[in-house]
Amino acid sequence: MGVRPILFLSDYGTEDEFVGICHAVMARIAPAVRILDLSHGIPPGDVLRGGEVLREAVRHAPEAAVYLAVVDPGVGTDRRGLALEAGSSFLVGPDNGLLVPAAEALGGTGAAVALEEPGASPTFHGRDVFAPAAASLAAGGMLEELGAVIDPSTLVPSPRLELVVDDSRVGCRVAAVDRYGNVQLDATPESISSFGDAFHVRWRGGEMSTSVVRTFADLPDGAPGLLVDSWGRLAIAVKGSSAATMLGLAPGDAVEIGPGSDR
Amino acid sequence: MGVRPILFLSDYGTEDEFVGICHAVMARIAPAVRILDLSHGIPPGDVLRGGEVLREAVRHAPEAAVYLAVVDPGVGTDRRGLALEAGSSFLVGPDNGLLVPAAEALGGTGAAVALEEPGASPTFHGRDVFAPAAASLAAGGMLEELGAVIDPSTLVPSPRLELVVDDSRVGCRVAAVDRYGNVQLDATPESISSFGDAFHVRWRGGEMSTSVVRTFADLPDGAPGLLVDSWGRLAIAVKGSSAATMLGLAPGDAVEIGPGSDR
Amino acid sequence: MGVRPILFLSDYGTEDEFVGICHAVMARIAPAVRILDLSHGIPPGDVLRGGEVLREAVRHAPEAAVYLAVVDPGVGTDRRGLALEAGSSFLVGPDNGLLVPAAEALGGTGAAVALEEPGASPTFHGRDVFAPAAASLAAGGMLEELGAVIDPSTLVPSPRLELVVDDSRVGCRVAAVDRYGNVQLDATPESISSFGDAFHVRWRGGEMSTSVVRTFADLPDGAPGLLVDSWGRLAIAVKGSSAATMLGLAPGDAVEIGPGSDR
Repeated sequence: MGVRPILFLSDYGTEDEFVGICHAVMARIAPAVRILDLSHGIPPGDVLRGGEVLREAVRHAPEAAVYLAVVDPGVGTDRRGLALEAGSSFLVGPDNGLLVPAAEALGGTGAAVALEEPGASPTFHGRDVFAPAAASLAAGGMLEELGAVIDPSTLVPSPRLELVVDDSRVGCRVAAVDRYGNVQLDATPESISSFGDAFHVRWRGGEMSTSVVRTFADLPDGAPGLLVDSWGRLAIAVKGSSAATMLGLAPGDAVEIGPGSDR
Repeated sequence: MGVRPILFLSDYGTEDEFVGICHAVMARIAPAVRILDLSHGIPPGDVLRGGEVLREAVRHAPEAAVYLAVVDPGVGTDRRGLALEAGSSFLVGPDNGLLVPAAEALGGTGAAVALEEPGASPTFHGRDVFAPAAASLAAGGMLEELGAVIDPSTLVPSPRLELVVDDSRVGCRVAAVDRYGNVQLDATPESISSFGDAFHVRWRGGEMSTSVVRTFADLPDGAPGLLVDSWGRLAIAVKGSSAATMLGLAPGDAVEIGPGSDR
Repeated sequence: MGVRPILFLSDYGTEDEFVGICHAVMARIAPAVRILDLSHGIPPGDVLRGGEVLREAVRHAPEAAVYLAVVDPGVGTDRRGLALEAGSSFLVGPDNGLLVPAAEALGGTGAAVALEEPGASPTFHGRDVFAPAAASLAAGGMLEELGAVIDPSTLVPSPRLELVVDDSRVGCRVAAVDRYGNVQLDATPESISSFGDAFHVRWRGGEMSTSVVRTFADLPDGAPGLLVDSWGRLAIAVKGSSAATMLGLAPGDAVEIGPGSDR
C-alpha cells in the first residue's frame, strides 16, 4: 500500500484558484504524493464529457493510481460522494455517473464507500471532501476508513447519448471542439462502415461530401473532411484551421452522416 | 531546515511562458523542491485580489511552506522585493501589500529582508529575483542570505476596500467572477445579519429580492439568489448558469444589499 | 545516467486533455521523473514561435534536462520524429525546425535519431511517440534505443524571419502579444542603436514617436512606448493597460522603426 499518484480531472478551469487549493490540500495531507492534472477544462457541469475524458485517460495512465474527478453540479445536496476500487486503482468523486465509465474501463467497480462529509462547505466538496479522500488513498489509506460501504449496484449510472442509426444515416452529436477547432463526434468509424468509402455529412446550416482521411495533412486545402481522431472517434477537421469556426459547429450540435454520392 | 514546498501565485496567466520559466529557474536551483501552482489567473496588476487569494490559500496549505507571489505592476522601480518569515512559512514577492494578508493569516510577519537584485531584468523579477529567492528558502537557505534585514513595520500595507454599512444597507463590490459565472461579493453574511432573512439586492441595471440559500441546487430555477461561498463570503449565483452574464456584473461593480420586503 | 527532469512545451493549450494525457503516459513509463510545463500556449501550429520560446527557456533551465516539444502540424505524415543530444541535454519533437534553435543554444546537435513509431495514432504523436521517448531518456535510456541514427545535417532548419534593415528604418514583425497586452517585436535594441535615442514607429493604422524606457512604470501615463523586454527584445507597452488593444496590433503584423524627429 505504498504511495500512488493522483490523476486529477475537473470542470474548475485554470483561471480560478480551485485547482490550486485542491493541490494544496492534498500536499498537506500527503506530502510525498505526486499529482498529475489530466484536464480542468471540462465544460462546467458536463458530467457526460467529464466521464468520457476520464475513461480515455485510464487507458494511458499509471497502474495503481488514484483518480480524483470533480464535475459536480449537485454539490451540497444529498447526492453521495464516492470512493471506489476498480482494478488496482481508486476513483474519487460525486455519485452522478462521472466515475462509472472509467471504473468500467479499469475492470469494473469492486468495493465502494459513501464518503463522510463532516464540516464540508456546501459549495466546494473538491476541497473539503474529495481531495482529502484522494490524498488519503494515495498515501496508503484504506477505502473503508473513508465512509460506509455501499452496494456498487446502487451507483448512479453514467449519462449516455445514444446514436440514432438506420440503414441510411447515423445521427450523432458534436462531443467536443478542441483548441485547434477540430470537431469530435460521438460516432466511431465502425458506425458508418456499411456506407462504403464516401460519405455525406449534414448539420444545421451546412453539408459536405467527404471520405475519411488518415491525418490532418491528408485533408484537402481549405476544405473540411473526416478523420479518425486519437480517441478512435470520427472528427471533422480542416488542415491548419478551425473546422468549428468554418462550419459553425459547437458541442451538442446534431450531425448526420450517410452514404456519399458515389455509392 | 529541510526541503519545503513552494506555492506559487501570480497574474502571469497560463498562455505565456512566464510561469514555466519560473518553474525552470526554481528546478535548476532546487531540484528536489516541489512546486504547486495556486493560481496564475489573478487579474493583471490586481494586488488586492492576489492578496485575498493568497490569504485564502494559506488556510488549506502545508505547514512550513514557501509562498511565491507575483502581482507586480511596479516591477523595475524602487519598490522593494521582499522575503518574509511568518509562522513556520516564508513569503516572497513585491512590497506592494500583496503578501500582507497572508502573513497576517500565518500569525504575522517576523523577520523580513529586502531582496538583492543583482543583474535582474527590469521587467521580469519573477524570473530573476523572486523565484530564485523562493527556491533558496525552499532548499533550506537562510532568510538573511537574501538581502538586508528591514523593519516589518515599514512594509507597504495591503490595499483594502471598506464596506459601506448603515442601518438600511451594505454597500459592497464584486470581488471576482469565477468560471461558472458566480459573482463573489466582498461582504460576509455577518454584515447583513441584522436585516433578517430576506434581502433586497441592487446594482446598476438591476435588482432582486432573495434569501440566502445553502448551495447551488437550492436556488430557484433560472433565477439568481445569494449563498455563502467556500470563502465564507456572499455570492450571487444562478443554478447551472452564469449569474455574471445574466445580471451584467463584473469585478469592481458596486452592489447594495438591504432588508427585503418581508421585514 | 540518472533521472533527468522533462521540460514540456506545446501548442496543445490547457483546455483539452492533451497535456494531461502526455503527463500520464510519462508517469507510467518513468514514475520518478519530474515534469515541468514550460508553456502550452504556443499559437496552434506556430513552429517559429515554439522554437523561440524553447530557445529562451534553455537559458534558465536545469542542466542535463530532457526537452519535450510538440508543435506539429505535419503529424502523421512522413516528417520524421526526432530525439537529439545537445550539450548535456536531450530534445524530443518533430523534425520541422522546432528543436533547432534550442539545440543551438545548448551547444549544437550531437547525436540524433529518427524515432520509431510502431502503432502510433496518426494524429497524436505527443502521446504515442514523443512523450514515451522523452520519458525513456529521462529515466536513463539510451538515445540509440529509440530509433535509427541520422545525420544531424539533414534536420529541417528552423523557420526564420529576416529583419529588413537599412539606413533609415528597421522593418520587423509582432512576434507575440502577452497576457498584459505587451507587444513583443522580433527586433533587438542593437538593431536600432544607430538611430540615436529617439524613434519613430509605424504600423498599419498608427504611428508614434518614442524613446526606449527601462520598465513599465517609466512609460508616460496612457501612452505607448518602447522598452527592452525580458528576452532582450524591443516591445511596445502601455503602463497598466494593453498596448495590443490600444494600437490594434496582433502577432505577425508589420512594424517599422526609424529615427525620431530629434535626430
